[in-house]
Amino acid sequence: MPPPVRRPPPSTGAVLRHDPGRRDFTSDNCSGAHPEVLSALLLANGGHQRSYGEDRYTAHLGDTFRRHFGPGAEVFPVFNGTGANVVALQAVTDRWGAAVCAGRAHVNQEEGGGPEHVAGLKLLGVPATDGKIGTASVEAVLETAEDQQHARPQVLSLTQATELGTCYTPEEVRVLAALAHAHGLAVHMDGARLANAAVSLDVPLSACTTDAGVDILSFGGTKNGLLLGECVVVLDPSRVSGTALLRKRTTQLASKMRFLSVQFEALLDGDLWHRNAAHANAMAKRLGSLLARVEGVTVTRPVEANSVFAVLPGTVLAALSRRYDLYLSDRLRNEARLMCSFDTTEEDVRDFAAAVARAAHAGEKDSRRP
Amino acid sequence: MPPPVRRPPPSTGAVLRHDPGRRDFTSDNCSGAHPEVLSALLLANGGHQRSYGEDRYTAHLGDTFRRHFGPGAEVFPVFNGTGANVVALQAVTDRWGAAVCAGRAHVNQEEGGGPEHVAGLKLLGVPATDGKIGTASVEAVLETAEDQQHARPQVLSLTQATELGTCYTPEEVRVLAALAHAHGLAVHMDGARLANAAVSLDVPLSACTTDAGVDILSFGGTKNGLLLGECVVVLDPSRVSGTALLRKRTTQLASKMRFLSVQFEALLDGDLWHRNAAHANAMAKRLGSLLARVEGVTVTRPVEANSVFAVLPGTVLAALSRRYDLYLSDRLRNEARLMCSFDTTEEDVRDFAAAVARAAHAGEKDSRRP
Amino acid sequence: MPPPVRRPPPSTGAVLRHDPGRRDFTSDNCSGAHPEVLSALLLANGGHQRSYGEDRYTAHLGDTFRRHFGPGAEVFPVFNGTGANVVALQAVTDRWGAAVCAGRAHVNQEEGGGPEHVAGLKLLGVPATDGKIGTASVEAVLETAEDQQHARPQVLSLTQATELGTCYTPEEVRVLAALAHAHGLAVHMDGARLANAAVSLDVPLSACTTDAGVDILSFGGTKNGLLLGECVVVLDPSRVSGTALLRKRTTQLASKMRFLSVQFEALLDGDLWHRNAAHANAMAKRLGSLLARVEGVTVTRPVEANSVFAVLPGTVLAALSRRYDLYLSDRLRNEARLMCSFDTTEEDVRDFAAAVARAAHAGEKDSRRP
Amino acid sequence: MPPPVRRPPPSTGAVLRHDPGRRDFTSDNCSGAHPEVLSALLLANGGHQRSYGEDRYTAHLGDTFRRHFGPGAEVFPVFNGTGANVVALQAVTDRWGAAVCAGRAHVNQEEGGGPEHVAGLKLLGVPATDGKIGTASVEAVLETAEDQQHARPQVLSLTQATELGTCYTPEEVRVLAALAHAHGLAVHMDGARLANAAVSLDVPLSACTTDAGVDILSFGGTKNGLLLGECVVVLDPSRVSGTALLRKRTTQLASKMRFLSVQFEALLDGDLWHRNAAHANAMAKRLGSLLARVEGVTVTRPVEANSVFAVLPGTVLAALSRRYDLYLSDRLRNEARLMCSFDTTEEDVRDFAAAVARAAHAGEKDSRRP
Repeated sequence: MPPPVRRPPPSTGAVLRHDPGRRDFTSDNCSGAHPEVLSALLLANGGHQRSYGEDRYTAHLGDTFRRHFGPGAEVFPVFNGTGANVVALQAVTDRWGAAVCAGRAHVNQEEGGGPEHVAGLKLLGVPATDGKIGTASVEAVLETAEDQQHARPQVLSLTQATELGTCYTPEEVRVLAALAHAHGLAVHMDGARLANAAVSLDVPLSACTTDAGVDILSFGGTKNGLLLGECVVVLDPSRVSGTALLRKRTTQLASKMRFLSVQFEALLDGDLWHRNAAHANAMAKRLGSLLARVEGVTVTRPVEANSVFAVLPGTVLAALSRRYDLYLSDRLRNEARLMCSFDTTEEDVRDFAAAVARAAHAGEKDSRRP
Repeated sequence: MPPPVRRPPPSTGAVLRHDPGRRDFTSDNCSGAHPEVLSALLLANGGHQRSYGEDRYTAHLGDTFRRHFGPGAEVFPVFNGTGANVVALQAVTDRWGAAVCAGRAHVNQEEGGGPEHVAGLKLLGVPATDGKIGTASVEAVLETAEDQQHARPQVLSLTQATELGTCYTPEEVRVLAALAHAHGLAVHMDGARLANAAVSLDVPLSACTTDAGVDILSFGGTKNGLLLGECVVVLDPSRVSGTALLRKRTTQLASKMRFLSVQFEALLDGDLWHRNAAHANAMAKRLGSLLARVEGVTVTRPVEANSVFAVLPGTVLAALSRRYDLYLSDRLRNEARLMCSFDTTEEDVRDFAAAVARAAHAGEKDSRRP
Repeated sequence: MPPPVRRPPPSTGAVLRHDPGRRDFTSDNCSGAHPEVLSALLLANGGHQRSYGEDRYTAHLGDTFRRHFGPGAEVFPVFNGTGANVVALQAVTDRWGAAVCAGRAHVNQEEGGGPEHVAGLKLLGVPATDGKIGTASVEAVLETAEDQQHARPQVLSLTQATELGTCYTPEEVRVLAALAHAHGLAVHMDGARLANAAVSLDVPLSACTTDAGVDILSFGGTKNGLLLGECVVVLDPSRVSGTALLRKRTTQLASKMRFLSVQFEALLDGDLWHRNAAHANAMAKRLGSLLARVEGVTVTRPVEANSVFAVLPGTVLAALSRRYDLYLSDRLRNEARLMCSFDTTEEDVRDFAAAVARAAHAGEKDSRRP
Repeated sequence: MPPPVRRPPPSTGAVLRHDPGRRDFTSDNCSGAHPEVLSALLLANGGHQRSYGEDRYTAHLGDTFRRHFGPGAEVFPVFNGTGANVVALQAVTDRWGAAVCAGRAHVNQEEGGGPEHVAGLKLLGVPATDGKIGTASVEAVLETAEDQQHARPQVLSLTQATELGTCYTPEEVRVLAALAHAHGLAVHMDGARLANAAVSLDVPLSACTTDAGVDILSFGGTKNGLLLGECVVVLDPSRVSGTALLRKRTTQLASKMRFLSVQFEALLDGDLWHRNAAHANAMAKRLGSLLARVEGVTVTRPVEANSVFAVLPGTVLAALSRRYDLYLSDRLRNEARLMCSFDTTEEDVRDFAAAVARAAHAGEKDSRRP
């Protein structure tokens, strides 16, 4: 038991505990926050502002999102991607609804069962090539779910960019959205990396969302340079209801909301979202092309956003793991997912590719030994 | 529709939108973050750290909490108080459990139905004098809930400081916890304002928690000077299970967790928690005593933490509302809840009390007119 | 472990295990089924009928209910009262809704937390005199639940006859329903004993339901002579949605539904519902008046349906318990709830009242002894 | 609006509305109840019995099940299969658990999302050959679900007989259960047709349940000749908790439980379960072999229990549908699922096979015409 801390010692403040110069390719949420984002936090500090979203930064945020997503957009800041997805899916489904998504969608695989736990939602996972759902998969699941024995599909959830680093074109989204709407389903987009997709496609944020028929969006901030924060963005209010109340009861209502909102202002009022995403994408493209040249390494997915999927020899993985944290997307196949971030440098990419090449070369020599 | 934003204009950054010099008494979550907290955020920025709690700041945080709460403590940072409460209550109840709490507990009244929605938890609200539950109320509810027709009470949830600004003494908590344990219930404490209570009671944080038999704690940071952040603190691991997995599926797992953890380091490694709470309490004490002197004003609850509850004449409320945001805790009785924060100044208190006195005086003169 | 039962012995059939001549006043669900109900089951047996409600008995049931409840009524047979209530409350609330009910309503106290567990529904219990909610209680709870911090009340749930054996008049229901509708709430009636109430009020079943503004009804069969079975009855389809799908996912969809439906045909196509309820009510009336004459016994609630609430001396309770199963509605006060059923006889009533009188007399003599 | 029904006309009783001589092969829940089951209901009627399972028939039922399933078995009668499965899966999982099952398991496909809705349970569907899960599928899903991002698998759910009419051998169950237990998972069996499987395998009911490592069982009655009723049977109480309370809050607690229990007494105290299942299986075997001889017809699954899966020419389906209700298990392939029941007669089978042969012959002649 601690000695009584009635008058604790004066604060020495927090202490630096990590190496600010070290970077990996483990995930784009391993990076910190962009300096402009931190500046925005400092700016919004001080004085009192009404809590729970009645502050001036949140009030302004509506205009920011409408400029990007059209005059009907409504924005609801939340803490994280799981929260955004769980709130959004509830807002477009009735108690008896189900969601159609890719079998390996983040919402199906990596939310820890959150949509089922919080919302009682059934997720109907369908096959998806390189992470992208095709119309045939949607049609097949709709066919089998027509009677009272089945949960009723009410929303199609697409991830943009996908979990495999690919991007739906605006036209692909449009076709899927039209199919969904024709069957009475709403369309949700998990846009944790929407900025990366829009930059990759060279289109505005609205092109593969509002303009393509998406009704509700989880707009990602954390992976594009924020401290933390995502937004539920209602694009077609006629298909959505209860978002504010659902955010609260899903535990996602921030009291000091100004600190979420001002980060999105920093991201979206200027070009920070574009700069960050463009940089991360460029680093991934470069990394992909360097790795593709290494003998024994196979880049397994099209590099369209900020990730590279590559199968590496086991000896290479072993060698790399001494210096790098690695995320294996498929352990059996030795496939690693390498993510680039707003703060990944050209040197980081070069060094990593060189390390792979060295390890591959060494491995090859080893295997040639008599 | 917006014009294509393929190459958006360079960022001008976020813009100051509020008056950093203006403060009210609406709530302690209307204030911003303490400068030492912001410094800590800047410190933790830069470089890559593993996400989802495997960073160095979160690793250190365990030691910090064990120093305050004893060697068995385990800490799980989350985003907000609703999240902390909903995760904690799940971690000490089975699927068939119910929670006993004060009828007007925050968890019962102001979580928007979150515990029911996320966890299917039945809350059994009991009467509470000045916000504090007595043993008789607990015994009464246990008596009626013994068969399979009733949800089984499995946890007693206490708020410290209470929603009415009072504090349980360590002995009071001990008696309630012993009663709860004797009936097989765990004890949860909603400590959104635990620091204020500990300072008011002049005891360490452990005195009315670990040492008094509390099993799991929602430890508040947001209302004591953080940007945002609370912690679920497991005090008796033998009565708690699944906290990490429940945090994830309740949507409360932060990816860049270092930014939550480092704020708690700034708060708790030194005396910032104590300074902030002591200041807020002192301001409330002062405000309470100034208001109590004004004729026509009644302070309705003991001022033990950082809030003052006072019934004010309608004319006074009307006059004040021109300059101040006011939170009415009871509209029918004209009762206002006035909260002090770490950044409330003596001048703020003096000005407010003077404004009340002026308005009361003017009202009295009005009422004397023929 | 059992010896292998590959070829089990020929069936000897089920064996009589209880005394078909013994009756108590414990609950109206301790009785069995009315013979006409069993006849109906035999009639509906044999041959194949489509399952899950597509059989001919269920098809007919719509007409039966429309004759009683008006041309807009839709009927959904379910297994039990908890199921009916949980399905019905979901069908008139969104994911973010709450239900207003009497604090001691069955749905709040004796469903084991089912509405919270299955539906995540928050129940807002309000005070109720003799089991009946007044308009002031409803107004008070609506006042406090207007912002996003609170679960949004979306339905007012009334029990008819109430848990305390009283009946809302049609006019009382009308006033409450109008108030609820004016605030956007739907009206649900837990009519586990609706037949008893209608008979007591000498009105048709529609008088305190459809005609008074009730939108959705849990219509009780089990306590009025069925083997088992209740119905969710949609009275105003414009305020209700998803009933069929909610019934399934709430686990209340019967496959051989003809056996539920034909029981309701037996009950409602003729006068069986009325005969059974009238008889039970008459027995309660008689029991109440006999008990009221016994010195030391106090009948504590108006006897308006098929229950009598009476405070009995402890010695009397002890004496009675040798022969009768007794249900104590309030142990501290020695209050028993005595329920009459369709099969309670005049002799049962006379015997019980005589036993009470004897025990009271004996107790009094005891207490007079020097 | 109906005319006032204050004194409704005397009852004429329920009316025969269906043809008791007509039988199909649509589903084994399209049949009615076996006469011995109805006799048991009549026997248990009359007099008062304590409700909610405290009656004498339910008390006896424990012995009945222990005789079949071993001395540790505990039995909880419920209304239907969805209810049994949802209660059972909750009783072996924590709030953060997930269930592994065949992708096309009934619990995953045809419960309308009940497990997710009621229990927030994530179902992890895996591939299954002819409806039977193999160990490799289980291992694969366990591998991917080790961190806090994933719902934690806590139960393996097997269907016996499977949805495709095949049966796990006791040895197959034993291997799967050992694998599950080795990873800390409990084993649930959806035994809606367990009797059919045991008879097919010529083993006692315990052989592929208790003796093979199953921890909790949904034991089916409805499809084997009951009016309605299933049982949750706890086989290894050390792995199960809260069953009684979960049954209540899942809406599956019957008040007049004697009427559920006595049916299972009729089924299991003698050999009725065996006679009914053996007959249905024999009819399926016969039907399968007759259909296999028809040119153009392909029996697609092993006929091991009471179902036959067969692909029929479209013209044959069209011809049959004039006289028979048909359930298509795969519309695209023209695959029908034909179920036999305890009351399916040899004549029914002969007639149906003959009708298929006639239609196939006619179709062939048509196709040969110039």
